[in-house]
Amino acid sequence: MNAPAAETTIEPAKRRERGGGRVARRELRSHGSEGLSRPYIVRNIPTYDILSEENLLRIEATADRILAEIGIEFRDDPVALAHWKRAGASIDGVLVKFEPGMLREILKTAPASFTQHARNPANSVEIGGKSVVFSPAYGSPFVMDIDKGRRYGTIEDFRNFVKLAQSSPWLHHSGGTICEPVDMPVNKRHLDMVYSHIKYSDRGFMGSVTAESRAEDSIDMARIVFGRDFVDRNCVILGNVNVNSPLVWDATMTTALRAYARANQAAVIVPFILGGAMGPVTNAGAIAQSLAETMAGCALTQLERPGAPVIFGNFLSSMSLRSGSPTFGTPEPAIGSMVIGQLARRLNLPLRCSGNFTTSKLPDAHAMNEGTMSMLAAVHCGANFILHSAGFLDGLLSMSYEKFVMDADFCGALHTYLDGVKIDDNQLALDAFREVGPGSHFFGSAHTLANYETAFWDSEIADNEPYEKWEAAGSEDAAIRANRRWKKALAEYQAPPLDPGIDEALQDFMSRKKADMQDAWY
Amino acid sequence: MNAPAAETTIEPAKRRERGGGRVARRELRSHGSEGLSRPYIVRNIPTYDILSEENLLRIEATADRILAEIGIEFRDDPVALAHWKRAGASIDGVLVKFEPGMLREILKTAPASFTQHARNPANSVEIGGKSVVFSPAYGSPFVMDIDKGRRYGTIEDFRNFVKLAQSSPWLHHSGGTICEPVDMPVNKRHLDMVYSHIKYSDRGFMGSVTAESRAEDSIDMARIVFGRDFVDRNCVILGNVNVNSPLVWDATMTTALRAYARANQAAVIVPFILGGAMGPVTNAGAIAQSLAETMAGCALTQLERPGAPVIFGNFLSSMSLRSGSPTFGTPEPAIGSMVIGQLARRLNLPLRCSGNFTTSKLPDAHAMNEGTMSMLAAVHCGANFILHSAGFLDGLLSMSYEKFVMDADFCGALHTYLDGVKIDDNQLALDAFREVGPGSHFFGSAHTLANYETAFWDSEIADNEPYEKWEAAGSEDAAIRANRRWKKALAEYQAPPLDPGIDEALQDFMSRKKADMQDAWY
Repeated sequence: MNAPAAETTIEPAKRRERGGGRVARRELRSHGSEGLSRPYIVRNIPTYDILSEENLLRIEATADRILAEIGIEFRDDPVALAHWKRAGASIDGVLVKFEPGMLREILKTAPASFTQHARNPANSVEIGGKSVVFSPAYGSPFVMDIDKGRRYGTIEDFRNFVKLAQSSPWLHHSGGTICEPVDMPVNKRHLDMVYSHIKYSDRGFMGSVTAESRAEDSIDMARIVFGRDFVDRNCVILGNVNVNSPLVWDATMTTALRAYARANQAAVIVPFILGGAMGPVTNAGAIAQSLAETMAGCALTQLERPGAPVIFGNFLSSMSLRSGSPTFGTPEPAIGSMVIGQLARRLNLPLRCSGNFTTSKLPDAHAMNEGTMSMLAAVHCGANFILHSAGFLDGLLSMSYEKFVMDADFCGALHTYLDGVKIDDNQLALDAFREVGPGSHFFGSAHTLANYETAFWDSEIADNEPYEKWEAAGSEDAAIRANRRWKKALAEYQAPPLDPGIDEALQDFMSRKKADMQDAWY
Repeated sequence: MNAPAAETTIEPAKRRERGGGRVARRELRSHGSEGLSRPYIVRNIPTYDILSEENLLRIEATADRILAEIGIEFRDDPVALAHWKRAGASIDGVLVKFEPGMLREILKTAPASFTQHARNPANSVEIGGKSVVFSPAYGSPFVMDIDKGRRYGTIEDFRNFVKLAQSSPWLHHSGGTICEPVDMPVNKRHLDMVYSHIKYSDRGFMGSVTAESRAEDSIDMARIVFGRDFVDRNCVILGNVNVNSPLVWDATMTTALRAYARANQAAVIVPFILGGAMGPVTNAGAIAQSLAETMAGCALTQLERPGAPVIFGNFLSSMSLRSGSPTFGTPEPAIGSMVIGQLARRLNLPLRCSGNFTTSKLPDAHAMNEGTMSMLAAVHCGANFILHSAGFLDGLLSMSYEKFVMDADFCGALHTYLDGVKIDDNQLALDAFREVGPGSHFFGSAHTLANYETAFWDSEIADNEPYEKWEAAGSEDAAIRANRRWKKALAEYQAPPLDPGIDEALQDFMSRKKADMQDAWY
């Protein structure tokens, strides 16, 4: 691999460029919110800690007992079992049991915070501490828009969503499997997905986890962009791995997890627990299970390579016990996220939560009620990396074009929200009260004129006009406005510059890999 | 006034009746959430305190300087000015200035918590401490539904919303001016509104504040229901009074405020500050102003009658500085509410916040995105009485039938949310993990069977069905489901029993009052 290292291929003058280009920036400036845009958020409001020390200790003790008395199976991965054996775990076939405290000790080598480098260094993100990174939704087989309804996702849809994310000033990351490009062979599509992230975005992204070889291909492509040495020393790609809850790690996931860790890249460790199915129906039990499963996965990365970055993830939800269907965006996981946040901080690990969840099949009131509650829980719980921040509909099954831009707009509002209340003499405005006095108004006051440009969050999706004006303009709902918005963003999208040598090297790599494989369609 | 006292008119056997009647209860039981319904919520999650002690002190110091150096005008109410003079304030014409600490001292006689009695004692609510009471939206001239669109509200609409609130297991209060019944004369409609609350609901309610005489009529009607002595000793009616921000209290509001206090009933003191119009564009300044104005109003109730219940209210929002229109449900007021909550607790006063706000003209994604953020802020900030919990659309101008039932459903979700995470051996579910073990599922486990009935919040508005089933059933959005829901609730509504003697006395009172007045239409 002789690709040039990232440092030499990015012109400093381009570092502040965003993919949306001049038009998007001009539009943004016209309503005064541009100053809020940044590569990632540093929160200025505290986390919301809902559980007492005593109750947190009870959850931790339950997780420790699950790990020590019931154990976790690591299936079909002898290397993982060998790691656990060396670390002193008790092993019976594929069942591994852990003495209390053992995983916490192993986890001490994991960094509390790390940088994920983007190919445009201006877009590198910090993951940990007070940072908040918004990343698009992940993993839907379908896409939908209000013109054409639901259909299977294609590589064109995938590229469209990469472009929409890149165009948004309110997202910080390009995501991973934004939708499944089902028009590409299953065993090759990871190459096109990773290429699309690199080609059409200059932000951080996620690679494949569906096989060890695909994880390694993803990392190899990152090496082409950033250089092998740089990648060995820095995180440039994430891999999102799911536990087979309850209490099973299968080889697909552990070998992918180890591939990322081995390359010093960050695995995101995510138990996916629908209470009543893959976990108990009681929230406290599901939280304890999530803690146990995540600790085991995070610890395995440290056994593979001590010091490798790793992200403590979670995905709690529930079953509708009437219909048997999964639910998303309900109050129990929102509250559960808050507790998970406290637990992750006690382990001193960066935290991933899930954002904008719903079972709604349309970008309607149901969608944004559930999505907003769930996104605010992710924000309040202290999540550093919020996957599924934009686009999610239909309970993990569909990426919606309209919901994507609605959610991205809400991510903009959350920039303001996470800034909290600033306190200084200008903000406290005593002079403005002196100037205006009782019974007058602040419209033309010196204080208003000096502050109005950046005063308030200004949504592109909300319609604040008077009813009569809104009615005269066609009585549009938010979905129709969002439909116009994503089409405009795609039409105006400008690709971020990519060094032609790197582009060629990536295409060569893909061609060689594809030539070595028969197409597989399932 | 010789009406019988409440204690003798309510049969104990009826105390647990809810207006929705048997049908609603049966329906509720069928999906297992009935156990969550209660007269009001006692929160089991902490308030979310976002500002440091140091910054809270700076806001309080700014409020004190506004009060001492700029002052507040009390217009056309010589009694109020006389109160302030006796209390030692500095008075110059109608401008009143307050030495730092003076209002805090006066406020010490106000109760930290009090009971608002309902005519059905099972529906009495506690206001203060950890209690949370959801009350419908207030004050819209228009109503709308998706069949007929927007039109002026009528007394029939008013009654419908009282019935819908009474039918909902998730609202705790009947509200006040749920919509303006514009088919009734302006000077008489308060009588019909108060009567409708008493007749069609057996929960707590709010009276008129648009003139001192109308406030007194409202209280007199409450005396007919509860008895004069009971009312003199207990709170049975609230009055929501607005400051004429910035820094003006007019006589309409102060005389109404004093009428409620004089009768030992609770005034709710609410500055309505659109930043950029009635307050500065900076959030910290608007919060300081709100604190100053509310403290003055609350203190005036204590000068009128020391020990009278009073509620510390607030209503922060902003102007769209592009369009000049007000905005609602944006991030700044959500964050501002959290600070207001901290300030109210430092004064040891019950807190009112506003709930489900939006400028949207439809019950769509825009409406529920803003509404949910705003409602969660009210919940997180520790509000005890959340006005505008259900129905609000179009920036205070419209009550929506569909949004009302959507919001009421969300209030149900918030019952679960405010319960937080319960921690005990059953909830921690260690036995369930022993029973199920790695790689199996929890569907039929003993722990699931023992807990599933009350395990998860189950929305009536969300559709969790698989896409294909949803599509086959007509691809309905949430607004269409909500439309069906409110019609069903109205069709099944059953009035709570009302003593015929009280009903007659109320009607006599109204007839006499109406006979004394010419109709006024503006």
